[in-house]
This record gives sequence, C-alpha cells and structure tokens, in this order.
Amino acid sequence: MKKIIIASTSTLYNSGYLEYLFPTLANHFKNVKNLIFIPYARPGGISHETYTEKARDAFSKIGINVKGLHEFENPVKALESAEGIFTGGGNTFLLVHQLYKNNLIEAIQNAVKSGTPYLGCSAGSNICGLTMETTNDMPIVYPPSFKTLSFVPFNINPHYLDPAEGSTHMGETRETRINEFHAFNSQPVVGLREGSWLEVKGDYIVLKGELSARIFEQGKPAYEVTPETDLSHLN
Amino acid sequence: MKKIIIASTSTLYNSGYLEYLFPTLANHFKNVKNLIFIPYARPGGISHETYTEKARDAFSKIGINVKGLHEFENPVKALESAEGIFTGGGNTFLLVHQLYKNNLIEAIQNAVKSGTPYLGCSAGSNICGLTMETTNDMPIVYPPSFKTLSFVPFNINPHYLDPAEGSTHMGETRETRINEFHAFNSQPVVGLREGSWLEVKGDYIVLKGELSARIFEQGKPAYEVTPETDLSHLN
Repeated sequence: MKKIIIASTSTLYNSGYLEYLFPTLANHFKNVKNLIFIPYARPGGISHETYTEKARDAFSKIGINVKGLHEFENPVKALESAEGIFTGGGNTFLLVHQLYKNNLIEAIQNAVKSGTPYLGCSAGSNICGLTMETTNDMPIVYPPSFKTLSFVPFNINPHYLDPAEGSTHMGETRETRINEFHAFNSQPVVGLREGSWLEVKGDYIVLKGELSARIFEQGKPAYEVTPETDLSHLN
Repeated sequence: MKKIIIASTSTLYNSGYLEYLFPTLANHFKNVKNLIFIPYARPGGISHETYTEKARDAFSKIGINVKGLHEFENPVKALESAEGIFTGGGNTFLLVHQLYKNNLIEAIQNAVKSGTPYLGCSAGSNICGLTMETTNDMPIVYPPSFKTLSFVPFNINPHYLDPAEGSTHMGETRETRINEFHAFNSQPVVGLREGSWLEVKGDYIVLKGELSARIFEQGKPAYEVTPETDLSHLN
C-alpha cells in the first residue's frame, strides 16, 4: 500500500528544517532506521553532499539515519531495497532531469507501490503529481519529459501563494498561471500553502496541516478545501 | 541591421496596453504601416483572435495596422515579407512550443537580421535571449527545446522583482532562482524591471526607461546598471 507525505515546503518561517513535520514523520517512518535521501533538486545549487548533510542532521533528531542516493554505486538497486525515501526541494527541472538521466522514475514508482514510505517537499512534492507542469521553478535545465511519478491523479502546486493585495506588479499571479495551465491540460491542481501537506495511504488522500488548500479544476471556479478533506476522488 | 525593443512588460500599473511605449514605438516602427503580431503566448489562455484584437487596438493609436500571424496561410512567408514584428507576452513555454511547431524560429531570426524591426514584451522578450531558461512562467506545455532567438548574447528575466521586504514566504526569490540558473549555465542574465526595456541597434544594446536593471553574471555578485548603460559587451 502506498504511504506518502506530499508537503508544500520543508521549512516554515522562523522554524528549523522539517521541524513542523517531525511528529508526522516519526509516525510515517516508524519502521525506518535508514532513509534514502534524493538530493538532486539542489536548492541554490548546493552540492549533493551539503544537501544530504542537512537532511541527515534533521532526521537524526527523530533517530533515523540518512544516506544520499548519490552515495550508492547503483541507485536503482538502492531504491529497490530502501526502507524509506525522501526527495528534498530545490529546482524541479533539475530534479526531473536527474531522475530521468539515472533511470529512477520507475525505480521510485516500484518502491512506493510496494509500500516503501515516501516523503516529498516542494520539488519532491511536485513530482508526485501527473506532471511537473505546475511547478513554480525556473527552467534552468531541459528535462527529457515533464511527466512525473503520478502517485496522485492530479498535479501539485507547492508554496501556493494568494495574490498580494494592492500589488502593482503586472507579472501573473499564481492563480492566473494555473488557469493558463488549464487552458491546455485537464487534470486538477492542488495548491498547497506552506504548512499544508497531503497524506496518501493507498488510494486515500487527505489534506493535513492547519490551512485550507485551493483546488483548481478545469472549467470550474477555484475553491477552498479545509484540513481533513478527503481528496481521493479528485481527478 | 538588427532593430529590436525588448520590453519587460507590455503594460504598466494604471496605464493602457503598451501606452508607456507609444513614443518609442512610433519611432521604432516609423516606416511600418502593417505590423505582424505573434499571439502564440496567449496570456490567460485567450484566443489568437482576441489577443490580436488587443494589439490592433493599441497600435491603431499610433497609426499602424496589425495582422495576427495565425491569419496567414503561410506564416514563414509572412515573416519573410513583414514590415515589422511584435511578439506579445503570455506563457513562454506555449510561445516557444508554437514557434518550433510552426518552424518559425529561423524565419524570425532571418527577418530581424535583415533589418525588420522587432518588438517583444515579457514572453516575447524572453525569447530574444539565448535560452528561455530564465522565464518566470509555468511550464504548461513541453516545448521541443529551450533554445531561443539569441538576438542578444545573454538571457532576459522580464518582470524582474526585488525580494519582498519582511516576507515570510519560503519559496525562492527571483535572485535565488537566477543564482540556481548560474549553477548550471554561464551566460549573463539581465533582470528587467517593469517599465524598463533594452534597445538593440545592430550590436549596440542599451538600457532604456527610468529604472536601473539588475545584472547577474556567473561567479560575480549581482549589480545594478542605470538607464543608458551600454550592455553590448555583456556576454
């Protein structure tokens, strides 16, 4: 059975890395002693080593060891026998580029389908949707495809931001961008505000955290759903 | 000789479409009676017809007729004999996708190299750089390449936004995103604030408008340049 946490962000303002998720993660990864971290999204261009150190430091606080996927000679095999998987945030284009380059899309899908618990934050959450086409990131590299892991039957927009009141900036709001997406694509989009996450257990998908999420369906006005809403039938 | 206007935005807050550029455009297109408009970026998903109507309405105020490129049976031929070209803003992924699909990249390059005056706004400016990899847009469709027209030897970031003071949002700032770009790419990036544009005459490139622009070069701290700065040697 799939067991997945899809978090809008790794870090809340004025809080430590993953700190707000520790109680959730201690439960989600309760049978995990050794977690594999996928550092490919490299936020700010930091190295795989530096990024893995950051994840290692956070997970040490809940008694879990972390090894970076880049440390394994055979990453496909490493994922096959992983106890748990965490994909960190950063740049989604870079992440997806690296996943395809290393033939890891199917390996992650197989591991998660067979019950390996998965955590994604930000870019690591974007890839849980059908495509990465609702990422907020800059296209700094050209991936071979925008198709992603399809763990949920819709797309994710992490770090969802409401329009800034009184802004004089003429660039598109997040909602405008997602509406443009729906001019050419039919799958729903879940706008996850920072502090929100989706919990997936098999086919059951529920909104967690204290905030509402914004749901965009093609041809309908966007609407809000409150925490604990069952999103299993959104597709 | 190349004659190009690369504008950050089509529209300033509390002002009409293209209005702030009218004096510049009246001069830039002074020998043009019939302008070809490329509506492919479809802001908000609007139709080619609706978008062309908007451009037509604006240019009528400076005595120039507008025809949408989608109205021509042979768009490649239409560009060959164009008196002037304007590519409107919207979604850069969609725009680039359509340009490749219709084999128009080379046609626009040839027209501009032979002296046909060109105006780009927002997405239409992004494509004037070496690649579209510093666009702010959502990747709503998958283009066959991120390479663009290369009218200038660097990349453009239109609608450049300074970090919001006191923001608690944890998503990346524009500067962070451009720094991530430079972890993997070497060309400079010109961050054009709304109200700024570049004027290109042959190999001469100069910043216009009232605001400074922010220049990002790989391995250097970002810096500001004032209006009338010659950017010809930035590469």
